[in-house]
Amino acid sequence: MRTTFIRMITVLMLLPVISTAVKAQPARQPQFESPKVNPDNSVTFKLYAPAAKEVKLNAQFLKSPAPMSKDSAGVWSITTEPAKPDMYPYAFIADGITVADPKNQYLFPNEGFQNSLVEITGSTPLIHTVQNVPHGTVSSHIYYSPELGARPVMIYTPPGYEKDNAKKYPVLYLLHGTTDVEETWTKVGRANIILDNLVAQSKATPMIIVMPYGRAYPVISKSSGSLRNWENLQEFKKDFFNNLLPFVEKNYRTINDKEHRAIAGFSGGGGTSLYFGLNNPDKFSWVCGFAPGMLKEEFDRNNAVAFEDASKTNERLKLFWIGVGKEDGLYPVIADYLKLLDDKKIRHETFISDGGHTWMNCKLYLATIAQKLFK
Amino acid sequence: MRTTFIRMITVLMLLPVISTAVKAQPARQPQFESPKVNPDNSVTFKLYAPAAKEVKLNAQFLKSPAPMSKDSAGVWSITTEPAKPDMYPYAFIADGITVADPKNQYLFPNEGFQNSLVEITGSTPLIHTVQNVPHGTVSSHIYYSPELGARPVMIYTPPGYEKDNAKKYPVLYLLHGTTDVEETWTKVGRANIILDNLVAQSKATPMIIVMPYGRAYPVISKSSGSLRNWENLQEFKKDFFNNLLPFVEKNYRTINDKEHRAIAGFSGGGGTSLYFGLNNPDKFSWVCGFAPGMLKEEFDRNNAVAFEDASKTNERLKLFWIGVGKEDGLYPVIADYLKLLDDKKIRHETFISDGGHTWMNCKLYLATIAQKLFK
Repeated sequence: MRTTFIRMITVLMLLPVISTAVKAQPARQPQFESPKVNPDNSVTFKLYAPAAKEVKLNAQFLKSPAPMSKDSAGVWSITTEPAKPDMYPYAFIADGITVADPKNQYLFPNEGFQNSLVEITGSTPLIHTVQNVPHGTVSSHIYYSPELGARPVMIYTPPGYEKDNAKKYPVLYLLHGTTDVEETWTKVGRANIILDNLVAQSKATPMIIVMPYGRAYPVISKSSGSLRNWENLQEFKKDFFNNLLPFVEKNYRTINDKEHRAIAGFSGGGGTSLYFGLNNPDKFSWVCGFAPGMLKEEFDRNNAVAFEDASKTNERLKLFWIGVGKEDGLYPVIADYLKLLDDKKIRHETFISDGGHTWMNCKLYLATIAQKLFK
Repeated sequence: MRTTFIRMITVLMLLPVISTAVKAQPARQPQFESPKVNPDNSVTFKLYAPAAKEVKLNAQFLKSPAPMSKDSAGVWSITTEPAKPDMYPYAFIADGITVADPKNQYLFPNEGFQNSLVEITGSTPLIHTVQNVPHGTVSSHIYYSPELGARPVMIYTPPGYEKDNAKKYPVLYLLHGTTDVEETWTKVGRANIILDNLVAQSKATPMIIVMPYGRAYPVISKSSGSLRNWENLQEFKKDFFNNLLPFVEKNYRTINDKEHRAIAGFSGGGGTSLYFGLNNPDKFSWVCGFAPGMLKEEFDRNNAVAFEDASKTNERLKLFWIGVGKEDGLYPVIADYLKLLDDKKIRHETFISDGGHTWMNCKLYLATIAQKLFK
C-alpha cells in the first residue's frame, strides 16, 4: 500500500506528501490556484483551512477585510470587485490570525509582518509591469562592517552594463521603510522593472541603484526607548559611509562625485535619506523623500547643515524632492516640514498624491523622480 | 489626540500603525524577536495570536509538532531542546492553520506552502554558514521564451568573476524541487554560500551556477491528469535548451562544451536533471540527482539514450552521481533504479545518507558534488 501510495504521488511529481515542507496539513489537499486575476480585474483568492471558523481577505485595494466562504472540501474563497490595476499587498485573516497566501510565491519581504502580493496588470502595461524590453540585472551581495558583520545589499545595474567596460554610471541609493528589508524595493517596489521601462522609453538616465538593508539591526532586537532609533541610525550612518559606499564604488563602475550620487527612501528610509543627503553636501546633490518619516522636534537637529545657509543649500542641491499621499498618517508632520522649508527659503519640489502610506505610491514616486535624476 | 498618537508612533520610526502592511492586527502589538537561537542551540519561537486557542510549532528538527503556551499579552512561545546545527524549515500551526513566522524575514521560497527558516549556527561554521571569505554574486535575470513569456533565473558567479574579463568558467545547471522556485536553491539550499566556502578552501573549481524556474508553469495551473507533468517537462525542456542555455552562454563567460557543463537537481528537479543530462550526451558530461523524483514505469523511457549503449555512456560521463536519504519516501524507487544501473553496467556514484527528503540533505549533496565537478 505504501509503495502504491508513493507511486501515486510521484505521478504528481512529488506534490505535498513527499514535500520538503514541515508536515502540518493533511496529505491530500484539494488542488487550486490563488490568487487568480480575472479578465475584468476582479481577483479570486482561495485558502485551504478546513478547521477555520471564519476567514477574511485583507487586501490593500479593499476598504476593509471581506468575508470569504468555505466549500465542502475546506477551501475558503472570495472573488472581489474589479480593482484598479496595480500590485497590492494582501493577507488572509483566519480566526483572527494573519496568514500570507501559501499558494503564492510572491511575498512582501519584511521582518515585521507577512503579506502576499497580487499584480493586476490590466489592459495597458503600467510602469512597473514586466515588459519585453532590455532588462538590467539585480545582484545580491554581502559586504562587511567591522561592527555589524555581514551586511546584505541588492544592486541593480541597467541594461547594457555588462557590454561596455569603459562606461561609468551615476548611482541612486534607495532605502526601504521600517521593518522592510533589502529586497523590498525590488519585490514590492519593482525598482528594477520601473527603471528598465523608463530607460527603454528614454525617460530615465541609465543608473545603478543600490538597495541595502537600511538599518544597523532589526529594531526589535534592541531594548526599547526613544533613543534606540537614533542609535540605530547613527550606526547605520557609519556603515553606510564607511563600508557600503566604498564597497559599491570599488566593485561597480560608478561616477564618484556628488553630482552623480542620489539618495531616496520611503517612510523610515525616507527620513534617513533626507538626514544622510542634506547633512552630507559633499556626497549627494540629489535628495528625495517618499513619505519620509520625521518628527517635528527633530527638524532642527536633522536638517542642521541644510538650514545653516539656505542659499548654499539651494546652490548645491540639484533636486530636493518630497512626495506624500493626502491620506498618509505622516501627511501632517510632512506638511509642517514643507512649510518650514518655505519659511527657510530652501528650494524643493513636492508631489502631493492621492492615497496613503503604501507601496503603490512608492512605485509612483520612484517612477517620478527617476525621470528627474542626473539630468 | 490623533497628532499625539502619530507622534508617539513616529518616535518608534513608523512601527505597526503607519505600516504598509494590510491592517489586520490591533495597532499596538507586544514587541518581541522570533526565532531566537540560544547559546545551547535550543531555539525560542514566538507568535502573537491572542485569539488562537491552540498554537504548535512544526519544525524539521522536531519529531512532531510541539505545543506552545500563551502569555497574558497573547504571545505564544516555546523553547525547544538543543538542535543539531543546520538551517531548518519551520512553521506555526495556529488552530489548525499553518502560518510562517511573521517576525522572520527568512522564508522558504515556494509556491505550494509557506515555511520560515531558522539557522542554528553552532560553534563551528558549517559549509553553508556565511563566513568572511570572498563572496560570489547572485543575480536575478529575466529571459524570454516565445511560448512561455518572461522567465526568471538566478545566476551565481564565483568570487573574482568581475575582475578578469578574459577568464571563462564551467557551468552547473541546478534545478529545484516541485513547488520550489528559482530562489529556493540560494535561500534554502545556500548554493552560493556553499560554493563561496568551498572555493575559499580550494575544494571546488570556481563555477557559474544557473538556477532557473524549473518548470514550464506551476503544476496547479493546468488541468490535472497523469500526463500533465510530462507535458510540463517537455515544455520546460524546450525552454531550457532553446532559450535558457543560449541566454546564459550569450551573457556570461562560459566554457561551451559538455566537459564544462553539469546538471544537478533535487526531487522533481533531480528527475529532470537526469532526464536532461542522460538524454543529451552532447551537452552534459556531469549529471547528478539529489533524491531524484522518478517512476519505475518510466525508467526505460527516461533513460533511453543512456541505456542504449552502456560503454558509450560510461565513456562520455565524467560523473553520474545519485544521493538519497535512507528515510526518504523516494528511497525504494531510487534503490530500484540504482539496481537497474548496476544490471546495465552503467557506472555511477551513490551517496546513501541519513535523513529524509529535506533541504538539509540537499545542502550536503551539493557540497559533496561541488568538490567533484570539473576536475
